[in-house]
Amino acid sequence: MSVLVVGSMAYDSVITPRDSADDVLGGSALFFSAAASYFSPVNLVAVVGEDFDLQAIEFLKDKNVNLDGLTTEPGKTFRWKGKYLDNMNDRETIYTHLNVFEKFNPVLPDHYKSSKFVFLANISPDLQYNVMQQVQKPKFVAMDTMNFWISGALDSLKRTLSVVDALLINDSEVKELAETDNIFAGARKIQKMGPQTIIIKKGEHGALLIHEDSIFFCPAYPVDNLYDPTGAGDTFAGGFMGYLARHDELTPAIFQRAMLFATAMASFNVEAFSVDRVKDLSKEEIVDRVLKLRDMIHIEEDADWLTI
Amino acid sequence: MSVLVVGSMAYDSVITPRDSADDVLGGSALFFSAAASYFSPVNLVAVVGEDFDLQAIEFLKDKNVNLDGLTTEPGKTFRWKGKYLDNMNDRETIYTHLNVFEKFNPVLPDHYKSSKFVFLANISPDLQYNVMQQVQKPKFVAMDTMNFWISGALDSLKRTLSVVDALLINDSEVKELAETDNIFAGARKIQKMGPQTIIIKKGEHGALLIHEDSIFFCPAYPVDNLYDPTGAGDTFAGGFMGYLARHDELTPAIFQRAMLFATAMASFNVEAFSVDRVKDLSKEEIVDRVLKLRDMIHIEEDADWLTI
Repeated sequence: MSVLVVGSMAYDSVITPRDSADDVLGGSALFFSAAASYFSPVNLVAVVGEDFDLQAIEFLKDKNVNLDGLTTEPGKTFRWKGKYLDNMNDRETIYTHLNVFEKFNPVLPDHYKSSKFVFLANISPDLQYNVMQQVQKPKFVAMDTMNFWISGALDSLKRTLSVVDALLINDSEVKELAETDNIFAGARKIQKMGPQTIIIKKGEHGALLIHEDSIFFCPAYPVDNLYDPTGAGDTFAGGFMGYLARHDELTPAIFQRAMLFATAMASFNVEAFSVDRVKDLSKEEIVDRVLKLRDMIHIEEDADWLTI
Repeated sequence: MSVLVVGSMAYDSVITPRDSADDVLGGSALFFSAAASYFSPVNLVAVVGEDFDLQAIEFLKDKNVNLDGLTTEPGKTFRWKGKYLDNMNDRETIYTHLNVFEKFNPVLPDHYKSSKFVFLANISPDLQYNVMQQVQKPKFVAMDTMNFWISGALDSLKRTLSVVDALLINDSEVKELAETDNIFAGARKIQKMGPQTIIIKKGEHGALLIHEDSIFFCPAYPVDNLYDPTGAGDTFAGGFMGYLARHDELTPAIFQRAMLFATAMASFNVEAFSVDRVKDLSKEEIVDRVLKLRDMIHIEEDADWLTI
């Protein structure tokens, strides 16, 4: 089934302790669709400026990403520049030029409206809600958000939360949104706001899935070569939603497996700038990492292993 | 098989955001043996002062902890006072009075020397090495250490590392000992110093087992009521070593299962001061948490789950 993503298309400039890149392809919709397209067809909605090189994203079409929802508006493309500190966990923003993204008003092409899976990337909760008014009976809707909306647009955010199935969020954002230091208690509190599926991303410490009343944990893939974390969260979301969208019945097992595929995809993303690593993967490479993750949490059980 | 532990017996004073306790039972040997005794007999070596109330640890004897190696020396018992900050991850030490522990010189009773499993708790690496001179052909030896010894007694520490099978260590200490920000690369570097089994404790983010060339990850148990983390690491070690010592053949599966039992035991420890929670557990309570941890990392697999 198709996955609809509504998000940003950007030019990122990134400084890491060992390298830097200027004006490389970025944005939540780009990272998401590059990852999701390995699993399911993607319908992309985003906006770029007149300076955007559309040729540079032709590769997405070959990967079954529909770009009919990508519009070009007068002005410049969204630009972000950031610098990662030595530990690669913290980063400082050098500039954010919203440009055409400031007036982004997502309008779905008619043939997108029946998309069964929807990912509302990190845009304003009012725009996310607006998208929800346009889609027809989606099967599963997930959203991202950030501390900017939690502190600045909480009522709007809660309205959007009330109409989605899943929230993907960082551990620090859970604590802020739910006003608690305990992320499990926080997840239960957020479930009361609407979404029954909460995915808490903890970076190098892995990711938690709280699905209804169950908890599943997937460790981060041990990457030797952490090059640039930009886009890891959206790449994770792309792997997660793309894998889900292959399945008619969303059982707990499907959600758990989706966590492994999502983690594997994010691990490739951080090994290069932009989508340089993610865009040319083989299915074997992906499955190989999923299996390694599975081995990291697999316990051989026999009849008396619980006898003490 | 019996587990020998050489460590401290102390009176702890603890301040947490919601409560405080004065001069309650503590020390690595206490926490370790209270946990390990659910799985295997324990031989304890530690020192206390003349002020120590031996009656208060009578319960350990009932739990199959041999106290023949506990000596009383003139002077006062080791005392530590600490305060946990709001997040419960960081703590500040208010005082450390080594007292009789300053001249601790562990001498094993003869009937301890054939202990097959040995845990060298966090004492000076020279004393740890000294213990290794006294034991006869142990099957598996694990050690703890801390940043104090890494920065202040590195050569001694490396000598001890060269004669043990396993190191239990915090993630920040791995980075310091191996001089790298990547804990996996750090673990491989430490393996070259001697121990082939490295257990990296990450607090609320769980624990990693690097065993020879495999990696296993166990998440932290989701504790609702985080009361006092003091002793969690030694309790973890007690669960780990106690479970191992039940087995003749230490297969990878046994190590993985031991990680779950260790994590379960640590989760009880943090729910109360001292060993108040750990000392009176039923086997059913322990197994219940192990099963919940297992469910948190269990993936249902079917024939085509890797087909993408």
